[in-house]
Amino acid sequence: MRIARVRVDGRVSTAIVRARRAHLVRGGPFGRLEESGEVYRLSQVQLLAPVRPGKIVAIGLNYHSHVGDRPAPVRPEPFLKASTSLIGPGDAIVLPQDAGRVDEEGEVVAVIGRRARNLRETDVDACVLGYTCGNDVSARDWQRNDMQWWRAKSADTFTAVGPWIETALNPERIDLRVTLNGALVQEASTAQLIHSVRACIAFISSAMTLEPGDLVFTGTPGATSQLAPGDRVSVSIAGLGELTNPVEAAR
Amino acid sequence: MRIARVRVDGRVSTAIVRARRAHLVRGGPFGRLEESGEVYRLSQVQLLAPVRPGKIVAIGLNYHSHVGDRPAPVRPEPFLKASTSLIGPGDAIVLPQDAGRVDEEGEVVAVIGRRARNLRETDVDACVLGYTCGNDVSARDWQRNDMQWWRAKSADTFTAVGPWIETALNPERIDLRVTLNGALVQEASTAQLIHSVRACIAFISSAMTLEPGDLVFTGTPGATSQLAPGDRVSVSIAGLGELTNPVEAAR
Repeated sequence: MRIARVRVDGRVSTAIVRARRAHLVRGGPFGRLEESGEVYRLSQVQLLAPVRPGKIVAIGLNYHSHVGDRPAPVRPEPFLKASTSLIGPGDAIVLPQDAGRVDEEGEVVAVIGRRARNLRETDVDACVLGYTCGNDVSARDWQRNDMQWWRAKSADTFTAVGPWIETALNPERIDLRVTLNGALVQEASTAQLIHSVRACIAFISSAMTLEPGDLVFTGTPGATSQLAPGDRVSVSIAGLGELTNPVEAAR
Repeated sequence: MRIARVRVDGRVSTAIVRARRAHLVRGGPFGRLEESGEVYRLSQVQLLAPVRPGKIVAIGLNYHSHVGDRPAPVRPEPFLKASTSLIGPGDAIVLPQDAGRVDEEGEVVAVIGRRARNLRETDVDACVLGYTCGNDVSARDWQRNDMQWWRAKSADTFTAVGPWIETALNPERIDLRVTLNGALVQEASTAQLIHSVRACIAFISSAMTLEPGDLVFTGTPGATSQLAPGDRVSVSIAGLGELTNPVEAAR
């Protein structure tokens, strides 16, 4: 099942996406998903970031292809991203004037569906609503020079997610691809993660409560690419769909 | 004016605190603060964390007395704290089993009252609702050994705030004191900050939008103290009041 958040006629609603149509649902994405009977073509609605997360946690250095010559982390290495950095499909990634180099980072993102603490790996799937595509936009100079990654990973527009949540993926083999202006720049499967999706979520929950709508970015593979104004960057997941965002300079 | 969030008879409400009484207010803390006429003695209500923040930003290394021999930062050095780490007055700080040394960090905390981006220092006061006491509880081994401070500063119960928001303080001279089991362990004035409250908030807003309810922890002075089960740690601000939390071991 594909769960989206859409704006239509000025209203924001949860919707189930089926056969290129948005079937509106009463209430939020974490409940019974009772369809209201209102149906729109996808071309008639604006797809929004599929949830409004209270918390965004991301994992650093989680593919060997991205870690390169550095030692692979012995445990997941999470960091926090600010909710105010969130954008949805089609929203512009805005390059700050003073940030220097800014890269895309395509990632598989887990959407938490239930409140959870101290999860065992075998209990993680029951707490995950589904997966979506994510772009953990990263300002490399800030990442290198600031004490912590507060703005390198959380400047406004630096967290893109969408187009919807797919509930039927197997977290052990989700295929991810990123294109920049149509050219393939990143490609991987979660089968190649150093720390699996389930291991990362269980580890995060060992220290902090996960809540419905929280997002877990699971790491980026390979080499990331610098973004420039006018670019279009797309993160796609097989069996899910594609998240595309244009890139703009800050005014 | 003192603005609190209270639980009384199972309901949660904003309240104005006057003469040791909570005067309940219709709606949230960012609007007109229209009193409903319901008044309770403070002993009849439970004081909660005064806001439910979308985002918590804290400043590292912001008093010379805390920086010590390290070079003072040339700009503010923010980091993010997770909203799920928030607790209020009287709530227990829970020491994780596997965290090693955990310290208190008493701080002056600004509560954002209006949405803001790219603030000039002279415009900061208009966007701050007021100030409250904060404890940026910090797990030192995790802080040293993890790649980022995600759990060192954001494990559940690691962000204590309260007892209420005081709107009448001058951010250039707020006097802060911390006691541990009654003994004074930290003492400073915001006049001694390396980067002023206004400079920190303006700098954060250069990268990310601040929203009503967001919290800005402004830094901790001097040497911090290790917490142990059974301790009581109090952060107080002159002209505001005291935030006290007991300390417990995780079960």
